[in-house]
Amino acid sequence: MALSVSAGGRVWRKFCKTFNFGPNSALKRFPTCTANGRLYSTSSDNVLVSKDEKSGIATVRMNNPPVNSLNTAMLVSLRSCFEELENDKSCRALILTSQKPKVFCAGLDILEIYRKSPDYVAQFWEKLQDMWLSLYGSRLVTMAAINGHSPAGGCLLSLACDYRIMAEGKFTIGLNETQLDLVAPFWLRQTMVDVIGYRQAEMALMIGALYTSDKALQLGLVDKLAPIEDVQTVAEEEVKNWLKIPDQARAITKMASRKPLLDELRKRKQEDIQTFRDETTRESVQMSIQQYLEKLKAK
Amino acid sequence: MALSVSAGGRVWRKFCKTFNFGPNSALKRFPTCTANGRLYSTSSDNVLVSKDEKSGIATVRMNNPPVNSLNTAMLVSLRSCFEELENDKSCRALILTSQKPKVFCAGLDILEIYRKSPDYVAQFWEKLQDMWLSLYGSRLVTMAAINGHSPAGGCLLSLACDYRIMAEGKFTIGLNETQLDLVAPFWLRQTMVDVIGYRQAEMALMIGALYTSDKALQLGLVDKLAPIEDVQTVAEEEVKNWLKIPDQARAITKMASRKPLLDELRKRKQEDIQTFRDETTRESVQMSIQQYLEKLKAK
Amino acid sequence: MALSVSAGGRVWRKFCKTFNFGPNSALKRFPTCTANGRLYSTSSDNVLVSKDEKSGIATVRMNNPPVNSLNTAMLVSLRSCFEELENDKSCRALILTSQKPKVFCAGLDILEIYRKSPDYVAQFWEKLQDMWLSLYGSRLVTMAAINGHSPAGGCLLSLACDYRIMAEGKFTIGLNETQLDLVAPFWLRQTMVDVIGYRQAEMALMIGALYTSDKALQLGLVDKLAPIEDVQTVAEEEVKNWLKIPDQARAITKMASRKPLLDELRKRKQEDIQTFRDETTRESVQMSIQQYLEKLKAK
Repeated sequence: MALSVSAGGRVWRKFCKTFNFGPNSALKRFPTCTANGRLYSTSSDNVLVSKDEKSGIATVRMNNPPVNSLNTAMLVSLRSCFEELENDKSCRALILTSQKPKVFCAGLDILEIYRKSPDYVAQFWEKLQDMWLSLYGSRLVTMAAINGHSPAGGCLLSLACDYRIMAEGKFTIGLNETQLDLVAPFWLRQTMVDVIGYRQAEMALMIGALYTSDKALQLGLVDKLAPIEDVQTVAEEEVKNWLKIPDQARAITKMASRKPLLDELRKRKQEDIQTFRDETTRESVQMSIQQYLEKLKAK
Repeated sequence: MALSVSAGGRVWRKFCKTFNFGPNSALKRFPTCTANGRLYSTSSDNVLVSKDEKSGIATVRMNNPPVNSLNTAMLVSLRSCFEELENDKSCRALILTSQKPKVFCAGLDILEIYRKSPDYVAQFWEKLQDMWLSLYGSRLVTMAAINGHSPAGGCLLSLACDYRIMAEGKFTIGLNETQLDLVAPFWLRQTMVDVIGYRQAEMALMIGALYTSDKALQLGLVDKLAPIEDVQTVAEEEVKNWLKIPDQARAITKMASRKPLLDELRKRKQEDIQTFRDETTRESVQMSIQQYLEKLKAK
Repeated sequence: MALSVSAGGRVWRKFCKTFNFGPNSALKRFPTCTANGRLYSTSSDNVLVSKDEKSGIATVRMNNPPVNSLNTAMLVSLRSCFEELENDKSCRALILTSQKPKVFCAGLDILEIYRKSPDYVAQFWEKLQDMWLSLYGSRLVTMAAINGHSPAGGCLLSLACDYRIMAEGKFTIGLNETQLDLVAPFWLRQTMVDVIGYRQAEMALMIGALYTSDKALQLGLVDKLAPIEDVQTVAEEEVKNWLKIPDQARAITKMASRKPLLDELRKRKQEDIQTFRDETTRESVQMSIQQYLEKLKAK
């Protein structure tokens, strides 16, 4: 599930190389990556929220430099933010995007599952489940404005939304878990199956495929492409179309469609946690992660 | 579920405008729309049936001017007709089309759920369920010859068939229920998911999308396009191809595919009636319908 | 389920005509078709296996002249072969292809269900189930190198693999069971639905469609086309890409996806056998088979 690293400047510089960030990358502004220690703080600035009171459209900007890794703090902040907007009667829609252009979200923070106790890993996984339940089950129109790379957990966030607009160009999206010897959970697999169909999803998950935006559009993994600088604007225009539909009928229709999967995860939550915990803390997987980290450093 | 109006000349003329019918429209022949009062009459002329004895192909023409609104009488006639053909050993296939070019079927008659008692709405909904069960579960080759607009209930009828041929041009098809603050029932949603895939169906249902024939073909919502004057002929040719297959194996194969959904509706019939009745008779939905009717009149 | 015939030279020559084999066909080498009497023999030469020890890639060549009909012996050999490779720790992938170019596999041997006792048919069907369970549920990367026609059981074998490469040209693939008054079992239907989607699968199964390679590619029924002489090479290249992914994560991911259907067949095995036995031994189906055989002879 996790491919991003929030470890130190050196690892990060190598990571940038992997993603082919040029020297003029906006990400140069974040040369050093620091682990975010603000746990359970919903007022953390790792997620920035703004809301247009007139239209009821909120924009949620992930702001966890350098690559919006989903560590515990970030998962907690996202969930708090989604629930707050859910309970805000004046809010009708949510656009999820990145404050850091070129990376939408690089996925779970791999350090959260590297050489950690089974209990720590279990708690981390539950935070991911809870965040996902609040986004996937939202009554709001949810739109992913994918303004950069979106592997693993980034793709998970996108799949949980109602509509996906992605930046044109060399950016990639996909569920590449198997590349790191990890296995996507059933609920994530199901959203992939739902969005691109069983056959393409089965293959994508087996080979851990990362797709360019063009290919992602062709597969239906994203719904629309736009130049990176226009992704937010295009998302706002799209949301306005959706808001022409009465909220209640649209939300009931959405829930009718998503309730079975939401219920399934709620029912199998502990089983899903145990599966992830047991698989992830296996020595062979820990070795895979170690090798991955060493490979990044060696570059 | 309902978007059609069988109320009076003025409403109807405005409704035509909404659908962009030109002054030369064949529908000019039906300037006044009268509510069809023939309830439970299977010998009603709101459905015209002809059968070619040699080939065993029946053609069922919807004939409820001006726009083939599905009121109680129409639902009862359709069901009776489907069951009669089902039990006619010499019948092998059924082509469903409209006697009134430019509109295949405009959907449920909205007046059947406007300011009606809960019991009335419940009985109306059961008629729809029964009609759908007889068409979707038919042993016959069923082909929709969609010779005109096909919103809401028109799309429902099309989705229940085995194959869909639609008129080229500006005609539209889709499940636009949410536009009127209504929610498609689970069995209709499932046929949409089955035909165009989960992702496109979820989106189409949330935003109440109406698609042009070209877009519908691209999505797989219809299987073939033809000039409006050729839709019936093309349907007859297509049926002949299907009839080359032994009836029994084809019918068993079809049932194997459709039995789970048929059983699900049979099992949850009362629950589905209650859901529709409770949602539809809610004051906010009644207000939406009222506003919709007033908007039509105001045009 | 069965469309192939291993009966005698005359029937076979007519069968070739049906498939448009030219006078220069490699199949000329097998002018007479003999029923393979080697039952339960895993050392039979009807399946040829070679393995590259370095890469761990095994190639399984079906070698049951003239058209790789799936009779009992062939089903038993295939299953033994799949299970042997499954248990061979050094084996990582399996390429399934035909030793006889122009026909990948012509499907179940129709003579195995023609005028046979119910018990014989039941045992035959169980052999098919067991073979399918071992291929569909394999931990290996499984790749179909479809170097020729692939109707009915040939399509079944292809659908059970992870990836399908098919020869360009006039070769066809599909589940054409209904053409012979037969019905595909639920597990085969489900793999078809999974691979090409519900709607296309429902239609394909109802009309017993055989698709050209081009159409099969467009539908997603196969993943890639190659000139017939390159199918094996392209398959080997593709496998190498898949083997870059850690085996364990890939195999767990595959099982997570396929376990529900595997479990369903295991659970309903006897019911599925009875259904096939009862349907197939019905006089009307036996007459259909007889007419089919007579039609072949009469050509």
